[in-house]
Amino acid sequence: MDGKGIDELCIDTIRTLSMDAVEKARSGHPGTPMALAPVVYLLFTRFLKHNPKDPSWPDRDRFILSCGHASMLLYSILYLTGYDLSLEDIKNFRQWGSKTPGHPEHGETPGVETTTGPLGQGCGNSVGMAMAEAHLAARFNREERIVDHTTYVLCSDGDMMEGVSQEAASLAGHLRLGKLIWIYDDNRITIEGDTALTFTEDVMKRFEAYGWHVQRVEDVNDLDALTMAIKRAREERERPSFISVRSYIAYGAPGKQDTASAHGEPLGEEEIRGAKRFYGWPLDKPFYVPQEVLDHCRKVVEKGERLQREWEERLKRWKERHPDLAREWERVMRGDLPPGWEDSIPLFKPQGKDIATRVASGDVLNSVASRIPELIGGSADLAPSTKTIIKGGGDFEAHSYSGRNIHFGVREHAMGAIVNGMALHGGVIPYCSTFLVFSDYMRPSIRLAAMMGTKVIYIFSHDSIAIGEDGPTHQPVEQLMALRAIPGLVVIRPADANETAEAWRIALKEKGPVAILLTRQGVPILDPERYPIREGVERGAYILREPEGKPGIILIGTGSEVHLLLRAAGMLEERGVKARVVSMPSWELFDREGEGYRQKVLPPHIPKLAVEAGVRRGWRDYVGERGDVIGLDRFGASAPWKVVYARLGFTEERVVEKAMALIKEG
Amino acid sequence: MDGKGIDELCIDTIRTLSMDAVEKARSGHPGTPMALAPVVYLLFTRFLKHNPKDPSWPDRDRFILSCGHASMLLYSILYLTGYDLSLEDIKNFRQWGSKTPGHPEHGETPGVETTTGPLGQGCGNSVGMAMAEAHLAARFNREERIVDHTTYVLCSDGDMMEGVSQEAASLAGHLRLGKLIWIYDDNRITIEGDTALTFTEDVMKRFEAYGWHVQRVEDVNDLDALTMAIKRAREERERPSFISVRSYIAYGAPGKQDTASAHGEPLGEEEIRGAKRFYGWPLDKPFYVPQEVLDHCRKVVEKGERLQREWEERLKRWKERHPDLAREWERVMRGDLPPGWEDSIPLFKPQGKDIATRVASGDVLNSVASRIPELIGGSADLAPSTKTIIKGGGDFEAHSYSGRNIHFGVREHAMGAIVNGMALHGGVIPYCSTFLVFSDYMRPSIRLAAMMGTKVIYIFSHDSIAIGEDGPTHQPVEQLMALRAIPGLVVIRPADANETAEAWRIALKEKGPVAILLTRQGVPILDPERYPIREGVERGAYILREPEGKPGIILIGTGSEVHLLLRAAGMLEERGVKARVVSMPSWELFDREGEGYRQKVLPPHIPKLAVEAGVRRGWRDYVGERGDVIGLDRFGASAPWKVVYARLGFTEERVVEKAMALIKEG
Repeated sequence: MDGKGIDELCIDTIRTLSMDAVEKARSGHPGTPMALAPVVYLLFTRFLKHNPKDPSWPDRDRFILSCGHASMLLYSILYLTGYDLSLEDIKNFRQWGSKTPGHPEHGETPGVETTTGPLGQGCGNSVGMAMAEAHLAARFNREERIVDHTTYVLCSDGDMMEGVSQEAASLAGHLRLGKLIWIYDDNRITIEGDTALTFTEDVMKRFEAYGWHVQRVEDVNDLDALTMAIKRAREERERPSFISVRSYIAYGAPGKQDTASAHGEPLGEEEIRGAKRFYGWPLDKPFYVPQEVLDHCRKVVEKGERLQREWEERLKRWKERHPDLAREWERVMRGDLPPGWEDSIPLFKPQGKDIATRVASGDVLNSVASRIPELIGGSADLAPSTKTIIKGGGDFEAHSYSGRNIHFGVREHAMGAIVNGMALHGGVIPYCSTFLVFSDYMRPSIRLAAMMGTKVIYIFSHDSIAIGEDGPTHQPVEQLMALRAIPGLVVIRPADANETAEAWRIALKEKGPVAILLTRQGVPILDPERYPIREGVERGAYILREPEGKPGIILIGTGSEVHLLLRAAGMLEERGVKARVVSMPSWELFDREGEGYRQKVLPPHIPKLAVEAGVRRGWRDYVGERGDVIGLDRFGASAPWKVVYARLGFTEERVVEKAMALIKEG
Repeated sequence: MDGKGIDELCIDTIRTLSMDAVEKARSGHPGTPMALAPVVYLLFTRFLKHNPKDPSWPDRDRFILSCGHASMLLYSILYLTGYDLSLEDIKNFRQWGSKTPGHPEHGETPGVETTTGPLGQGCGNSVGMAMAEAHLAARFNREERIVDHTTYVLCSDGDMMEGVSQEAASLAGHLRLGKLIWIYDDNRITIEGDTALTFTEDVMKRFEAYGWHVQRVEDVNDLDALTMAIKRAREERERPSFISVRSYIAYGAPGKQDTASAHGEPLGEEEIRGAKRFYGWPLDKPFYVPQEVLDHCRKVVEKGERLQREWEERLKRWKERHPDLAREWERVMRGDLPPGWEDSIPLFKPQGKDIATRVASGDVLNSVASRIPELIGGSADLAPSTKTIIKGGGDFEAHSYSGRNIHFGVREHAMGAIVNGMALHGGVIPYCSTFLVFSDYMRPSIRLAAMMGTKVIYIFSHDSIAIGEDGPTHQPVEQLMALRAIPGLVVIRPADANETAEAWRIALKEKGPVAILLTRQGVPILDPERYPIREGVERGAYILREPEGKPGIILIGTGSEVHLLLRAAGMLEERGVKARVVSMPSWELFDREGEGYRQKVLPPHIPKLAVEAGVRRGWRDYVGERGDVIGLDRFGASAPWKVVYARLGFTEERVVEKAMALIKEG
């Protein structure tokens, strides 16, 4: 180790810590941390504006490790630069309850800005963070630059191949997000072997086509070249920057460098000794951190605290000059809603005219948006159909970042990843929308929203076969149940305009993600004076129609099917059957209720029939063994919606028939 | 109409038929058919090698309308060129049971090669078709070119923006698929308005970066330029071809041309009259087809029949010279499996050593692949982990298309769309693989596989939290249930090596798609001489362990959890409780059984406990109201798998405890 410069010493420390941690865990990805150690070293010690002692400093630069499998790279540099992460934590890599899980998990480790691992997602998140930064800067910077930070991403071949990153890159180029920098690890190795097996496109040219500023560094170990490239990327403020860096997986491992076998498994003792010999490292000291390395890297803390202090002074001056703006800024950064916001939730009066819940949702959105300026979002090119335009909100476009209407383009997956990034950034409440059937396109991002608990609102319209003519490709059948299967996601399918308003209220109050599923077709408005809609929706299910005396059957429905049940209940009454109708907009909210309420709404020993225009799976939890479900076990069909709806079994007559059969059996 | 050339007459007929059909249906997308009529006219009358009287001719060129919303474009030209589609069918556009659904549906309309509408999917399908063509050509062409056709795609801005098309285009460029031609409708309009709102990248440059041959046609109505471009694209055999064509949505409609409002709704009577006036068309004759247009277009039939006859003559000569090859070709094109193929399904003997079902699957794949040469597939860069390499099968690469191992790259979504295209092409049985959690990335394609009933085999390994250290991002929890929610998809989660072998047998026999879910970790081998595994897996669920006398409890499990149940049953026996253990690898197969069998395996009145390392939703259908489920209502965690498994509740003790509680309640 003698004669090594401090830079090299630090870089080799990152490498050896990563190797040793993976080896001790007997599991993990050593090759990429060894390759990219110079990049994170330079970023975290020279470029990143961050204070390891306050990872929640709002104006910090964001760093995303999109190739999350290289998690030890991140943990090593976080530890070295003084984040609240110890050498002991690193030794506990990939163990139960540790701060160092296999892939970076937001919330588990200080300094981890987002959960990564599923490839391409971090790239998408980064675009959302840069968009939030641009929006807040446009909204709040007056005289002082209160919001002024850069988002850095480290990404791999896998990230580049994933469609979600390509969608996101196209949009980032269009939006000219000048404070976004992607550093691409061009290591020529994939799990199946050389990238020549499958990935021979000209990546740099592709990014030029997207409108990015593009650079190349021929050797990741050339610190001067790397430094210059990052500098130039930071200077470029008109376009996002892409730096392609040639790196060498498992750099220094005598038999495994530049091989696929170094990707996803421990190197083994022999290779580790070989690599350490190559670095001039002590062979018998696992997790060895030279004191001068720690001293050098920890200087970041002092610099970071100084930077944050300077920012706080700016903030103070700014607050004095713009007290109202400052209060607003503090509020949105805390994530508090403005006082009295709930008054903006509209009430819909029955007018004898049907109104689609997507239309009602558009009204609610516009009403609450006027009171909640941090609400910002849009659609994957379906806003006129999903009714998600904030009127007068302006378009979020290059150099008009104060706009609140985002045009995501036909890029559902990037949209999903972007809203996660926006929510993680903070200061905004993002919503996004498409047809329910296309929630499939963004499912990996919805999963991560649920896992991280990001506050994101999904508006999924065209929620059933009742969209009609567009046919089975556009008619969701299994999406409702598939969304309900995601732990931590609240799914609400309101029955009418007033339930829709309540769904929005809940979505705005929830800490985590909420999906609101809306009809294309008109449905009657339930009278809010007659029905306990507000409390009912909050509790997930409630008694909408109660007969006199003990009910002989309970009809349970969601969304548009509730109205079918109300009509069927009337028909049953004519036949002398007392039917309770339960509106059940949200399973998740109902499941949160105590057994008392649940049994009150759905008492045992009364036969139950659930009706929903989707797959039947899962309903048995609510109708019980002797109950029944009218649903779908097939895809839809193309025809006017009333025809499809009736042909596929959603008629009052069928409900009555099934209900009578259940009563007879019971 | 006087003075119009026949080309223009035909093109305007396509336009007016499309306008009129949408108007009559009061629903649909008139603008794009009006814009792109020249393209389909030229393709179907001058370029496409097809015989409208035999849409299943194996060597026909394939045409895909990836922008499926422009379905009337396709229906119009299919009708005009003599496919089995009448003017009456066109008048029934978007009606129940018609041959002309809202979006093209494969199987509903002769000449529709694939179901499109969800954007980008058709692009992905086309790469699969071109790959199947290249593979079969490499396998069967000897002296004569028996397999020699081109795949054409018409695609939109939306297709271009979707990640799936970008992944597919990157792979097509890499594979140098010279017989693939994408024609891109550059109409500058999206649903939300001008493409300038969100899509300003240089699309042509991007395709150059992918390694495609790229051309531009400045005006879709310039038939000479269009013709030349298509000719050059056909001549280019070393690279896939991309032709960007400037078009005008709703061409000729006085107030709606080049506007977003022409995209997805009828033009209205006034605009239709205006457009017809512009074309010089009779204003009072909806669905008017000039006789000379029909005569001209129907000439395609004669030409197509001649081309097919010529091909049949070649085929005859070839058959005589290569009778064995010919028999093989006929077999694979019929979709028949080779005689005796089932003998290649291996039997695994218990050896006291655990074996992961993914490893067993790799053995089965290699064994059956030696007998079923049409089995071809690969992984989204995880083949070493999913164990899906056919040893000695060769790599499917540019200019070595006979290879059977496809390297899809980290492109799950394109992989899903590609295997659909391969299956639709015929002559191959495609399989593909990734980790179960990443099935989310390709879900829109799986849905279409289920809708079309394509014969595709999905190998999804790393099927639960028991993957361990990689943590929650890589641990599937809800994917199993989400796949089960897709109508028409058979999902099998085998418990051991022998159930895995049976799962493969079923997958090869099924007509539609099958997903096989496999463990990462080792599991014991169930003795095939002791357990009725073969019949059992085919029936979806079966009694694995039966106590003497009437069981006091039934334990139901899938996959690795079955072994946990066997151990727990032993512990229960020690406590004097008779426990039946049911292995239930497939809900879908079990649901196909008659009530007799179902009640035999899961009789009422005996308490039931299901155990599965996934979300619990849906199990109630099998355990009944008074049963219970040990599952997960949360995401997983990073730690060695046995720790995660136990910490999240998958222990013999918990099973015993829950079982005792159920018996007590019962």
